[in-house]
Amino acid sequence: MSDPETHWQTAITEIRPNEIRLRGYRIDELMGRVTFAQAIYLALTGALPSPEVGRLLDAILVSSIDHGATPPSTLAARAAASTGAPLNAAVAAGVLSINRHHGGAIEDCMGLLRRVIEIAGGAGGALDQAADQVVAEARAAGRRLPGFGHRLHTADPRTARLFALADEAGVAGRGVGSVRAVAQALAAQSGRALPVNVDGAIAAILLDLGIAPGLANAFFIMARVPGLVAQAYEEQTRERPMRAIDPTGAAYDGPAPRALEDA
Amino acid sequence: MSDPETHWQTAITEIRPNEIRLRGYRIDELMGRVTFAQAIYLALTGALPSPEVGRLLDAILVSSIDHGATPPSTLAARAAASTGAPLNAAVAAGVLSINRHHGGAIEDCMGLLRRVIEIAGGAGGALDQAADQVVAEARAAGRRLPGFGHRLHTADPRTARLFALADEAGVAGRGVGSVRAVAQALAAQSGRALPVNVDGAIAAILLDLGIAPGLANAFFIMARVPGLVAQAYEEQTRERPMRAIDPTGAAYDGPAPRALEDA
Amino acid sequence: MSDPETHWQTAITEIRPNEIRLRGYRIDELMGRVTFAQAIYLALTGALPSPEVGRLLDAILVSSIDHGATPPSTLAARAAASTGAPLNAAVAAGVLSINRHHGGAIEDCMGLLRRVIEIAGGAGGALDQAADQVVAEARAAGRRLPGFGHRLHTADPRTARLFALADEAGVAGRGVGSVRAVAQALAAQSGRALPVNVDGAIAAILLDLGIAPGLANAFFIMARVPGLVAQAYEEQTRERPMRAIDPTGAAYDGPAPRALEDA
Amino acid sequence: MSDPETHWQTAITEIRPNEIRLRGYRIDELMGRVTFAQAIYLALTGALPSPEVGRLLDAILVSSIDHGATPPSTLAARAAASTGAPLNAAVAAGVLSINRHHGGAIEDCMGLLRRVIEIAGGAGGALDQAADQVVAEARAAGRRLPGFGHRLHTADPRTARLFALADEAGVAGRGVGSVRAVAQALAAQSGRALPVNVDGAIAAILLDLGIAPGLANAFFIMARVPGLVAQAYEEQTRERPMRAIDPTGAAYDGPAPRALEDA
Repeated sequence: MSDPETHWQTAITEIRPNEIRLRGYRIDELMGRVTFAQAIYLALTGALPSPEVGRLLDAILVSSIDHGATPPSTLAARAAASTGAPLNAAVAAGVLSINRHHGGAIEDCMGLLRRVIEIAGGAGGALDQAADQVVAEARAAGRRLPGFGHRLHTADPRTARLFALADEAGVAGRGVGSVRAVAQALAAQSGRALPVNVDGAIAAILLDLGIAPGLANAFFIMARVPGLVAQAYEEQTRERPMRAIDPTGAAYDGPAPRALEDA
Repeated sequence: MSDPETHWQTAITEIRPNEIRLRGYRIDELMGRVTFAQAIYLALTGALPSPEVGRLLDAILVSSIDHGATPPSTLAARAAASTGAPLNAAVAAGVLSINRHHGGAIEDCMGLLRRVIEIAGGAGGALDQAADQVVAEARAAGRRLPGFGHRLHTADPRTARLFALADEAGVAGRGVGSVRAVAQALAAQSGRALPVNVDGAIAAILLDLGIAPGLANAFFIMARVPGLVAQAYEEQTRERPMRAIDPTGAAYDGPAPRALEDA
Repeated sequence: MSDPETHWQTAITEIRPNEIRLRGYRIDELMGRVTFAQAIYLALTGALPSPEVGRLLDAILVSSIDHGATPPSTLAARAAASTGAPLNAAVAAGVLSINRHHGGAIEDCMGLLRRVIEIAGGAGGALDQAADQVVAEARAAGRRLPGFGHRLHTADPRTARLFALADEAGVAGRGVGSVRAVAQALAAQSGRALPVNVDGAIAAILLDLGIAPGLANAFFIMARVPGLVAQAYEEQTRERPMRAIDPTGAAYDGPAPRALEDA
Repeated sequence: MSDPETHWQTAITEIRPNEIRLRGYRIDELMGRVTFAQAIYLALTGALPSPEVGRLLDAILVSSIDHGATPPSTLAARAAASTGAPLNAAVAAGVLSINRHHGGAIEDCMGLLRRVIEIAGGAGGALDQAADQVVAEARAAGRRLPGFGHRLHTADPRTARLFALADEAGVAGRGVGSVRAVAQALAAQSGRALPVNVDGAIAAILLDLGIAPGLANAFFIMARVPGLVAQAYEEQTRERPMRAIDPTGAAYDGPAPRALEDA
């Protein structure tokens, strides 16, 4: 290839005969020594995270792996699968249904938190006051705050767990601080609890991990793809083709509640 | 919902207020205690794998996370991204390019290995003879055997690593045995080495893990989605829109070779 | 570009400065002189159809432009749109839901009719007998015949219209003959009418037009894309985001029945 | 279905046994009497256009049906097809590559023209002055104007044809007037011709037809889908799987230049 017009550069993967390097590391050396979650972070940022951060990333990805039959991404994947689509097409239909209103709260909340942090100023600036201001502005404008409240979960169990793991990993910083400050400001100004949901928690932690907001939606996508596979595969193997799928009509008939200790 | 026509069942996820259970386990209990790879296996099969099997699954997913600029899935994702597509659309375009001829060798090889195992009969049956027969048939019919040989890698470094990890995890069984038997039969009959490639190694291990062949392609998809994200994001952030992308025109300019010990 | 590896040929469109030719014809010369339907046939086959055949193609495309809220392709497109997807992503999700069980009957029926014609032999061979044989075989094997019967329409109004237009255009040949023969054989053998549906009628006409069966699904896709656009756009502009879409829950509230004379 | 939550309305298609109505018209009555282009307009807007407007719409759709091997949407569709994707998946990959920088100029140009018309005020307001102002602003801000100029075509042959047909159909109004005014202002201020390209011409005409800008991209998608089918089908039937596709490496080897009179 000597045409200068079509020369280009990439900093992700280097391929030579019998040698594949991801961001400089041999892929066969990574295999068995880092988790998929660590490799994902490496692929996206160029840096290999510590095992503790890896564990936090694993938890983020696990937190969003599936949310049952009602999300539109599940519905789109099942609708495609019910017509005879192969798994990759069903997954693609699901991924195309992850947008502003479904998964997008992570990126929107990152923007909100960045604004709070910016107003608060340097590392020592008070987040509480900045959060108060941002919440007051949003309330005056009648805007909902992304990352807070949930249609179904009044206390999203995934949020507390993510915060605990972020603390353990020593990752919780201005991101987690600002999301907590906004939750407090919201409660104080509105008089009712509107707790941080899983999107808000992920947003805060991704900020503290230095992830670009433009990649936020990708974390939700990567987390949800296995769930979409499971949903589409269940549709393929359990349902008759071309049924009318009412997303609110599903009843759970899987394994009974069990604890990890039983495993 | 009382319309019987729209009632249906799902065994994947159960949602109640403040309680999300994946295959019976509380998702917040899984977070921080199992890896994403383990959760993927749980979502797809209903069973939680041991940490050792989890580590093997992590390695499978890491092995296929990216393969540089030339695969068609990369090209499709970058082509979409170069027009201004959001990440989910670029990823979907990439996922739609994972089919029979790209990723599909895993499922095809699983079919081949199942046939070898079937011919060999019960657990004690000799795989060598069965492999000889299947290879001879394929050669007579002029069929290529999926999972063997590679355009670029004469000794795929990912294969040896996967086999070693499968041995460590105590997973290697008739699947790994049969793929090795086919490689030997191929070498003996053709007189030249056509070693097991990464697809063949994954096929063998998925068989030994009891994964349905219909899910084989999904493993490749789940593994590659982060790579597609990285490729599409690099296109978005590094290249001008609407360039003509020659997949063979890329040069690597990322981090220099480095070893895990440096990390 | 001098790399022989990346040289390739295309017979569709030739681009020169200020000159765009589709299959040899200047696109600006085609504009205003042939319909979109004629240009579609030209793009796919390389031959420009007569205005009469063009009118038949227009009718085929109009026949399948939309089928309301219940088809899975509509559901997938609306599910994507309800999350904030741009129109192209919503349309793509819909297109991914056009497969074997939805639209695919056209290709399957073409295969069936080709078999009838083959059995009947040369132009003079009796289609009735061949149809009898093929229907008897299918009934013995418990196979449904693609292109016959409809869940809702006992006499699909689109079928009669397509046959009439095919007759007018002088197109109806062995394809239309064979689909009619199969319908008669079906009725005779089963004792109940299972008339040709719109897929069967399109299959017969595409055969008579010399379209390759591998393009059959594409005709359905091209016809349905505007319907998917209309459905996704209505979702975007009329519904709140992230609603649970029950495909059987829609009531029509558009223009009252009207006749073309009123236009 | 009696659950009020899942009740919803649609104004597009009404289905009853043996009766399918698009925006109030029986589909079998439309077939053979209106073109696909007219039916598309009906599906999207609810109104049936005159045959003259239908002919203009046909010309718009024909103008954008294909643009050869280099557009990213072609590349994505071919990349998918080269891996063994079915046509619908290849088309979807192509559709996902129609965005802001590819096709999107139509919508952007509609916004620009609306601004010119708004500044000009009522029907009698001078478009020239408004165009001068808008062009001067864009030049001061260093913004390119969408719908003007072309990488390859210095005088896009599709533009003149579209304008002539719009004049014939009596459609050309403030939209066509404003795009011409902007072209003149551009030439006057920059000292070099940057003529209206096909996107600009379509934008102007869609405005004059009363099409919502939110549907602009859809017109490009509907027009291009048959081209994507042709490209993907050629890839399937003419090329070996998994080739490296260099979009600039294609040579045309189809029918020699021919005129419509020869048809």
